[in-house]
Amino acid sequence: MPAQNMEELVSLCKRRGFIFQGSEIYGGLQGFYDYGPLGVELKNNIKAAWWRSNVYERDDMEGLDASIIMHRLVLKHSGHEATFSDPMVDNRKTKKRYRLDHLVKEQKPAVQQAVADAMEQSLDNFPALVQALVKKPAQASAALISAGVRDAFSGEVGDWTEPKPFNMMFKTTIGPTADEDSYGYLRPETAQGIFTNFKNVVDATSRRLPFGIAQIGKAFRNEITPRNFIFRVRELEQMEIEFFCTPGTDEDWHAHWLEKRLSWWEAQGVSRSKIEILDVPPEDLAHYSKRTYDLMYDYPSLGFEEIEGIANRSDYDLGSHTKSQSELGLVASVEENNDSVAKLSIPHPDTNKPVVPFVIEPSAGVDRALLAVMSEAFTKETLENGSERIVLKLKPHLAPIKVAVIPLARNREEITSVAKAIKADLQSLGLGRVLYEDSGNIGKAYRRHDEVGTPFCVTVDFDTVGLGGEGKTSDPALLRTVTVRDRDTLAQERVQIAELNAWIRSRLI
Amino acid sequence: MPAQNMEELVSLCKRRGFIFQGSEIYGGLQGFYDYGPLGVELKNNIKAAWWRSNVYERDDMEGLDASIIMHRLVLKHSGHEATFSDPMVDNRKTKKRYRLDHLVKEQKPAVQQAVADAMEQSLDNFPALVQALVKKPAQASAALISAGVRDAFSGEVGDWTEPKPFNMMFKTTIGPTADEDSYGYLRPETAQGIFTNFKNVVDATSRRLPFGIAQIGKAFRNEITPRNFIFRVRELEQMEIEFFCTPGTDEDWHAHWLEKRLSWWEAQGVSRSKIEILDVPPEDLAHYSKRTYDLMYDYPSLGFEEIEGIANRSDYDLGSHTKSQSELGLVASVEENNDSVAKLSIPHPDTNKPVVPFVIEPSAGVDRALLAVMSEAFTKETLENGSERIVLKLKPHLAPIKVAVIPLARNREEITSVAKAIKADLQSLGLGRVLYEDSGNIGKAYRRHDEVGTPFCVTVDFDTVGLGGEGKTSDPALLRTVTVRDRDTLAQERVQIAELNAWIRSRLI
Repeated sequence: MPAQNMEELVSLCKRRGFIFQGSEIYGGLQGFYDYGPLGVELKNNIKAAWWRSNVYERDDMEGLDASIIMHRLVLKHSGHEATFSDPMVDNRKTKKRYRLDHLVKEQKPAVQQAVADAMEQSLDNFPALVQALVKKPAQASAALISAGVRDAFSGEVGDWTEPKPFNMMFKTTIGPTADEDSYGYLRPETAQGIFTNFKNVVDATSRRLPFGIAQIGKAFRNEITPRNFIFRVRELEQMEIEFFCTPGTDEDWHAHWLEKRLSWWEAQGVSRSKIEILDVPPEDLAHYSKRTYDLMYDYPSLGFEEIEGIANRSDYDLGSHTKSQSELGLVASVEENNDSVAKLSIPHPDTNKPVVPFVIEPSAGVDRALLAVMSEAFTKETLENGSERIVLKLKPHLAPIKVAVIPLARNREEITSVAKAIKADLQSLGLGRVLYEDSGNIGKAYRRHDEVGTPFCVTVDFDTVGLGGEGKTSDPALLRTVTVRDRDTLAQERVQIAELNAWIRSRLI
Repeated sequence: MPAQNMEELVSLCKRRGFIFQGSEIYGGLQGFYDYGPLGVELKNNIKAAWWRSNVYERDDMEGLDASIIMHRLVLKHSGHEATFSDPMVDNRKTKKRYRLDHLVKEQKPAVQQAVADAMEQSLDNFPALVQALVKKPAQASAALISAGVRDAFSGEVGDWTEPKPFNMMFKTTIGPTADEDSYGYLRPETAQGIFTNFKNVVDATSRRLPFGIAQIGKAFRNEITPRNFIFRVRELEQMEIEFFCTPGTDEDWHAHWLEKRLSWWEAQGVSRSKIEILDVPPEDLAHYSKRTYDLMYDYPSLGFEEIEGIANRSDYDLGSHTKSQSELGLVASVEENNDSVAKLSIPHPDTNKPVVPFVIEPSAGVDRALLAVMSEAFTKETLENGSERIVLKLKPHLAPIKVAVIPLARNREEITSVAKAIKADLQSLGLGRVLYEDSGNIGKAYRRHDEVGTPFCVTVDFDTVGLGGEGKTSDPALLRTVTVRDRDTLAQERVQIAELNAWIRSRLI
C-alpha cells in the first residue's frame, strides 16, 4: 500500500538522508531543497532510466545540455516575458502577498462560495473563477473583501488589492556593467535551449524528420507560494523531449508519446491505474497548443496533480524563434521576430522544401517523479511476529543502494576484509552504489535498508571465514558462503561467495 | 600527438556537435555554452567516472546534490560577499570595463614593463604586480595611463580609472516582494552546499571521521572577461570533494588526495607527465589555507592552467558556518557568526569530544576536464595511403558513442532490420550510447566516427544476410557475421553476430 500522507514521506526523507531543506542552517530558503546521499542516487537513477529509454533505446533521438542562464531575447521571443506570470494580490494591512488562486482555494467553502457569487461564477469551474478575478481586477478586489477572505498570516479578513500579474522568471545581471540590456534569465524550462539549438543539432547530426532532442536539467520559477514539499519548488529539475515531426503526422506522434510515457512510468513503479489522463479542454489550452494531455498522479495528501504534460505545440516554438517568419507558412500565430539570426526550418522528407516542423513535447519533472516513485514504493507491513516495518519497495534499478555488505563483527579483521572484498567485487558490476555497512547491529542495519529500499543485504559472519564465535563452532559447510536477505520477501539464502556476483546481477538487471 | 592549438578543438566541437555557443541564434551570450548531442555524453561520462571512483569505489564517501540558489547568509559567512571579487578598471573614453590582470597581461612586453616600473615591481612576479596595482589604486591609474596601456576595443591608449573590486556572484531576487533581504545568490562553488549540510549528512548516515562528501553540479561566476572557449566561463560545472578528518591527520590526507587525483586524471587519459604540480607558495595562499596544490595542465594555446585545486582548508569552513564558535577551539581565524542554528562539530574518534574537522578539498572543473581530455585525445595521423585523418583517441569509458552500427544499404530491409537488432542488443549491455548510423556512405561514417572517438564501427553488409549485391554472390562463410572496425588500429575483423556482445563488452570494460 502506497504512502497515506505526505508527512510520513517527508519524515523518511529527512531521517534517512534523501532530502533536506535548502540553506537549512540559516533558517532555510523557501522552495529550495538539497538532495542528500540517498536522494542524489535515487534522482540520478530516475534520470538515467529516462535517458536510457528516451535517448539510448530509440534511433530517432539526440541529447542536449544547454546553459541555465539564457539571453533575454530567448525568453522574450518564447513568450515568457509577456505571459509566464501568476496573478497575485497584496493585503494592505499585513503587507503579505499571495498567489490569487492559492489564496481563494485555502478559504472555507462558504467564503469561496461568496467569492464565486460576487463574481457571478460557479465554484465548480475554479479555473474560470480565477480567470474572472484576473479579468475584472476592481470587482475582484471588492469581492475578496466582501466575501471575507482571510490572510493566514494574521487570521483576519484582509484589505485586498487588485490582482496583478507577477512574472515568475528569475532575472540576473550579466557582466560587470549594469546598463539596461545586461541581464539574462534563469531558464523557466529546459525546452527553450532545445529550440534555440535546433539548427546546431541538425547541422551536426544530419538528422531528418522525424526526430527528437532530449534534455535533463535545472529550471527555475519564482513561485509566489512554494508548497507541498518538493512538489512546487522554485528550483526544479526537468526531463524534456521536443519531438520534431512533419505537420500532419503530429497527431499520430502525440498518441505515440502518450503511450510511451505511460509505459515508462509503469516501468518506474508508477502504474497506469494510478495516473489519470486529462485531455485538456480546448478552452483551457494556450493559444498555440493544438492538444495537451496532462498526466495526473494521485499524490498522498495532495490528490491528483500533474506529473507530466504531453503537448502538441504545433509550429509555435520554432516559428517564434526563427528569422524570415513570413516565408515559412507558419500555422501558429507568432509574434514578429527581428532578432533571430537563424532560419529554423528543415527539408520536408517528401518534397525537400523547407518546413517548420510541429513539436510534440513530453515534459516531466524529476522532483515530482521522485515523489511519485517514493509514494508508490512506501509500504508499511505488519510482520508475522506482530512488529511493523516500513519498506521502500523500489524497482531495483531505482534503488539508491543496490546491495549492503555487512560484516557481522566490525572489529574482526578476518570478517571485515572479506566483507570489503565482496563490496568491491559487487561494485565492479557497475550496477550502482554498493555500501559497506558497519555502522550498527545487524537488526538495525536490516531495518535501515528496508526503509531506504536496498534490495539485498549480504552478511559476512563467523561461518563465512571458518571462525568459531558467539559460543559456537564454525560450520564447515558454510565456509566461503554469505547470507543474502531479500528486502521484499525477507527470505534469507546462503550463497557461495564465488557465485555471488552472478546471483546478484541476475536479480538486479 | 595532442591538439596543437585551441582553434582545431573549437572547430571540431562545433562541427561534430560537442559544444555550441549559448543563445547563439540571438548573437550569443558571452561565457555561456551549450553541450550538444556528443558533448552531453562526454560530459556525463566524465562525471560518472569521477563519481564511480570517488563515491562508489571508496567506503568513506557520501554523495550530495544541493540547490544552486542559496541563502545570502551562506555566502556571507563563507566569505564570498566580502572577498569573491576581481579587480577591474574602466576606460573613461570608451566606457569599456576590463579585468585588471587580463588587461595588463595582454599588452606588449614593453608596456607591461613600463607598468611594472611605474609600480616599482618586477615583471617576473606578475601576481605581486597585480597586488601592488590593487593596493595603490591612485598610483595604478596613473601607471596604466603613463605606460600607454591600450584598450583592445579602440586600439588606443585608455584613460584608465582606479582599480575597483567587482564581486563575481550572480544575485537574484527571491519571492514576489522586493524588500532588501529578499535576494539570494547563485552559488559560486558547489562546496558551500556541502558545508551547510554537514550536520544533516552526519545525522542521516552516522558517519564518523574520517569521511568525505562529494558533489557534482553547476556553479556561476560573473567573470568580467570570460575567455578561452570553455576554460573561463560564467556558468560552469564542478566536481568537488570535502574530505573531513581529525586535525593532525590532515597533512597525510592531503598527500593521499594528491596521489588519488593524479591517478584519476591518468585513468581519463591525462597523463601525469602533462600535469605540473604547483605547491602554492605560502605568500599566495588564502589566510585560511594551510597548503594548496594546484594541478596545472598544459592546454593547447593557453599553456599551463589550473585543472584542479587540492587545498587543505583547515577548520575554516565548518568553523565559519557553525554556531557557538568560541566553544569549539577553532584553529582558523573566522568571522563571527550569529546567524547559524547548527553546531558543526563531530565526536573526535579517540576522545569522543566535539571537534571541528579539518577539510581537504579536491576541486575540479568538468568543463576544464572535458577540454583536457579532448586535447589529449585529439590526434592527426597520416595514413599509409598518404591521406590524413583526425581521430579522437578517447578512453573507451569516455567515448560519447561506444559503437556505431552501420547498415551497408539503408534501403534494404533485410540489412537494416539486422542492423537495428544488433544495435538494440549492444545497447542492452548498458555501456553507454550505441548509434544506429545510416546517415551517409560508409567512408564518411568511418571518418565521422574517428573524429568523435567511437571505439568500434560494426557494419552489416550483404554477406551478413546471405544476399548477393554489388555484382557479387554472397559468401556463405560470412553469413551471420559482421565487420568490426577498430578506431585506433583501423583493423577490420569479421565477428559472428552471436559472439558480438561478448566481443565488444570485453573490449569496452
